[in-house]
Amino acid sequence: MYLLRVNMSNLRTALEPLPEEYKLLGNRGLVAEILCREVPARTNPLGAKNKLILAGGPLAGLGISSAARLSAGGKSPLTGGIKEANAGGIAVQRMTRLGIRAIIVEGQAETGKIYLLYLKKDGVELLPAGELKGLGTYDVAKKLRARYGKDIGVITIGPAGEMLMNLAGIFATDSEGQTSRACARGGLGAVMGSKGLKAIVIANDGDYRVPVHDEEAFKKARKEFIKVLMTTPQTSEIYTNYGTASALAPINKLGGLPTYNFRQGSFEKAEAIDGDALYDLIEKRNGAGKHSHACMNGCVIRCSNVVPDEEGNTLVSPLEYETLALLGSNLGIADLDAIASLNKLCNDIGIDTIETGAALGVAIEAGMAPFGDAQEIYRIIEEEIGQGTILGRVLGQGTLITGRVLGISRLPVVKGQAIAAHDPRAIKGMTITYAMSPMGGDHTAGVTLRAPIDHHKPEGQMELSRNIQVIVAAHDSLGFCMFVIPAVGGKPEYVVNLINAVYGTNFQPEWLMEYGKDVIKKERAFNLAAGFNEVHDRLPEMFLEEELPPHNLVSDLSEEDYRRYWDTEFWGEFPKL
Amino acid sequence: MYLLRVNMSNLRTALEPLPEEYKLLGNRGLVAEILCREVPARTNPLGAKNKLILAGGPLAGLGISSAARLSAGGKSPLTGGIKEANAGGIAVQRMTRLGIRAIIVEGQAETGKIYLLYLKKDGVELLPAGELKGLGTYDVAKKLRARYGKDIGVITIGPAGEMLMNLAGIFATDSEGQTSRACARGGLGAVMGSKGLKAIVIANDGDYRVPVHDEEAFKKARKEFIKVLMTTPQTSEIYTNYGTASALAPINKLGGLPTYNFRQGSFEKAEAIDGDALYDLIEKRNGAGKHSHACMNGCVIRCSNVVPDEEGNTLVSPLEYETLALLGSNLGIADLDAIASLNKLCNDIGIDTIETGAALGVAIEAGMAPFGDAQEIYRIIEEEIGQGTILGRVLGQGTLITGRVLGISRLPVVKGQAIAAHDPRAIKGMTITYAMSPMGGDHTAGVTLRAPIDHHKPEGQMELSRNIQVIVAAHDSLGFCMFVIPAVGGKPEYVVNLINAVYGTNFQPEWLMEYGKDVIKKERAFNLAAGFNEVHDRLPEMFLEEELPPHNLVSDLSEEDYRRYWDTEFWGEFPKL
Repeated sequence: MYLLRVNMSNLRTALEPLPEEYKLLGNRGLVAEILCREVPARTNPLGAKNKLILAGGPLAGLGISSAARLSAGGKSPLTGGIKEANAGGIAVQRMTRLGIRAIIVEGQAETGKIYLLYLKKDGVELLPAGELKGLGTYDVAKKLRARYGKDIGVITIGPAGEMLMNLAGIFATDSEGQTSRACARGGLGAVMGSKGLKAIVIANDGDYRVPVHDEEAFKKARKEFIKVLMTTPQTSEIYTNYGTASALAPINKLGGLPTYNFRQGSFEKAEAIDGDALYDLIEKRNGAGKHSHACMNGCVIRCSNVVPDEEGNTLVSPLEYETLALLGSNLGIADLDAIASLNKLCNDIGIDTIETGAALGVAIEAGMAPFGDAQEIYRIIEEEIGQGTILGRVLGQGTLITGRVLGISRLPVVKGQAIAAHDPRAIKGMTITYAMSPMGGDHTAGVTLRAPIDHHKPEGQMELSRNIQVIVAAHDSLGFCMFVIPAVGGKPEYVVNLINAVYGTNFQPEWLMEYGKDVIKKERAFNLAAGFNEVHDRLPEMFLEEELPPHNLVSDLSEEDYRRYWDTEFWGEFPKL
Repeated sequence: MYLLRVNMSNLRTALEPLPEEYKLLGNRGLVAEILCREVPARTNPLGAKNKLILAGGPLAGLGISSAARLSAGGKSPLTGGIKEANAGGIAVQRMTRLGIRAIIVEGQAETGKIYLLYLKKDGVELLPAGELKGLGTYDVAKKLRARYGKDIGVITIGPAGEMLMNLAGIFATDSEGQTSRACARGGLGAVMGSKGLKAIVIANDGDYRVPVHDEEAFKKARKEFIKVLMTTPQTSEIYTNYGTASALAPINKLGGLPTYNFRQGSFEKAEAIDGDALYDLIEKRNGAGKHSHACMNGCVIRCSNVVPDEEGNTLVSPLEYETLALLGSNLGIADLDAIASLNKLCNDIGIDTIETGAALGVAIEAGMAPFGDAQEIYRIIEEEIGQGTILGRVLGQGTLITGRVLGISRLPVVKGQAIAAHDPRAIKGMTITYAMSPMGGDHTAGVTLRAPIDHHKPEGQMELSRNIQVIVAAHDSLGFCMFVIPAVGGKPEYVVNLINAVYGTNFQPEWLMEYGKDVIKKERAFNLAAGFNEVHDRLPEMFLEEELPPHNLVSDLSEEDYRRYWDTEFWGEFPKL
């Protein structure tokens, strides 16, 4: 197994054997480890000393369901802290077959030049890619698949990444070759753009297989793992049939659905854009439409979907809950076709739908367009952001800068990043996830929605979120999709058995929590060295003071809850950079 | 003596007796004290919980030269930390005669409404001021002087403050009624704008006199103080004849003059804009032109000037070194008329010439205009910033946001604020001033230029800057102009004798340093509570890595120098908020 170093300053690449101590570290854990070791915490996120890490995990390539996520990581230009964002798709399965655990992109190409990285069995090439300049992600994939064959995996940025926008994500192809899988958050697409790297092609000609210590135990563990996914209702029915859109109706009922720029927690037109509405639309139009769709080969959850247009052709795939909320209810848009089109456009330009929706909510509040005007919002994304006009570059820097430029100081951001579609006033566990996670306002750090707790009450939310955050960090670092957590989050033996079988370790189930804690502790160490402290581990005033209709709640966790979060009694000793 | 509280939320005003413990605290010291006591450090700088403090000092109104500076203070929207900026002019002399040490503006008026505060002997009025909306500062003063008489003092913001721009300062009238005196830095004009307060009129009908404990000792101390100012060459000749423009030639020679967006430390056309050139231009045109001009009555230094246009009419007054550098050499402009016109325009819109020049340097680097194109730069300031177009609002947020939006990450800012016209690579003491001051990149926190040290060498610069910063903080908090420091900075007995005579104290000269330290310690306490830490006490990478021609220097102070700065051995114990 190797690390591939790609130096954009001198255009050299080098394969290094994966250090023994990185063996069990993948994805988010590997990002944290490499950033702490190799990137000066105070450095300019868009400068030559930052590094972009694209990593898979230790269980990828072994036919385990949902275990081949692609992580992108680096110092974030949006938050100024550590950032990891992950996506499904086929890239990591191909990388793993080439024996590559992670790609570390270093240095910075000459201004104005862009390159393509081509990974294949017989070597690595770094090629000038002027012909891809300014292309949308869909066209990049189309062009590269025409050139290198349909079986390649593609990782790319859109024009937004080239323009160094904080909205920019890194997009990867799914089984159909569509750039629909996004390492969306934190502006990592701008980090890739700042390096001068436009895209990565990963051929499917590798034949490396991760050595398995005990094949029999492994097959048994894999079978059990797949079985538990297929027998847990959340992972075998709800996600499979309704995808993440299934969350919209219950969150709307809880009053935690961002609506009209976080002014309401319920949307009066929620029924037009919820899981049932999406299901019915796919059912009615049929054609290319699909309720269940696997973003990577072998996934049994298949939470993804394909949304067809009126003629039955693919409009976008997938359409997820966070997008329905941030580009839908948060902008007052109650039209699935309109939201799907906005989503497709964002994917093509290469931007995060969450940060984009939050920034547009603020721009609407500043008078830029009326709520619900999907056509004007489409135009703003396409012609302003996509073309990089001054207004587009303002929005392109995200919610915080949009607010500062337009004179709005009521901003739903933590550590510079917009929170996602679980309003922490109505789903109070998210107060802690958003406030404390080293990732900034990021729901994927720990969704508390499915816990059996009264989400409107502050009691117990700190402990709940903290536990989930650790569980998520562990799964994130092993390359798992977070959607396995409803099935195995409370039963670590399933995952630990897989690790033991493959790597010959003898871990007890408790190992997994310690492993997750170590990752978060490293992330925090990086952030502290980058200038964060407890003051940044808080929600903005709007969530503490502004009552959220219809339940008229504020986020009222006690200062004590925040303070206790980083107790060494829970975490053990913290490392220091 | 009173504090005047002005609550913009309920439009009530109240005079409170000055608390005994504030007796010796003025200006910057009073800002620090009130902010630490009354403003939650994490609050939104443009929200209702921030406070704008406009303060004079304990020695104002007593006929002491240079002792009636006006300080504006609050939590800065530019830096996110504490901010105090001060100016000359006549406001504080009038405030003091009305018995008012400071005005504390609290709360926030209804959106869209703006008010005028009118202070006079028989009371305080808060009046709707819709007719002043959008007016430039010169017109505000003109209008108010026409209405209330030529003898009033005016404090106002321009349209930039109303638009909540980080560039916005607070402008005060001089003896001629021109709004030429600027509490320029840190976006305090936006804080005033966020309150809904457009202007303050201070009538000249007060008859309060600060009680003097020992008149005879006071008269003697005042005489001695004035004498030392009048016999020190810097304060009696250089400042008087050449103003601050006298610094341009030596700084150019040292290689510390910001030129072409901080790419050079010397300007090949420096001779066209230096102190001699300005002197000659005033001499030649005569008319309203003046070499020596006092911004407040009774100042014997008279560092200010009046720059006449070709017809001999006032073009701008004063034209200062920092403006010559930031709007001149830094933008490649070598034309005194052009710089004076830009200066006038900035005063009128109500923006800081330093932050504006630094932001424009970055915009030029991003391709917005060619260096040296004074006409286009004038247009950008007038039509974009002044009119609040999207581009104008971007520039209006200052250098950091301009850079982020335009994709430039080489930014000359510390704690979010642009440094001024002493490049810390060639004047190495300024490394410490810019990096460590709680004020962010602000030269007025401690200019090391006149110290007998090799400015190109790192040795001794930390101690030098630290001492000067403490001395400056002390003088800033007593209401003195920092230009008295060349005369009395090393002889604290002059100032301490004045304090003892007026207030009946019995301080030794050493008291002054302890007094200054206390102010900085409070400021730091506020900043720490607001989220700053040692990571923010550093220069950006460009000054550490990019060699500055012609001497090809970088700022190379040791990490140890930075670390030792906050030694408790020097400072004593730090308070904690």
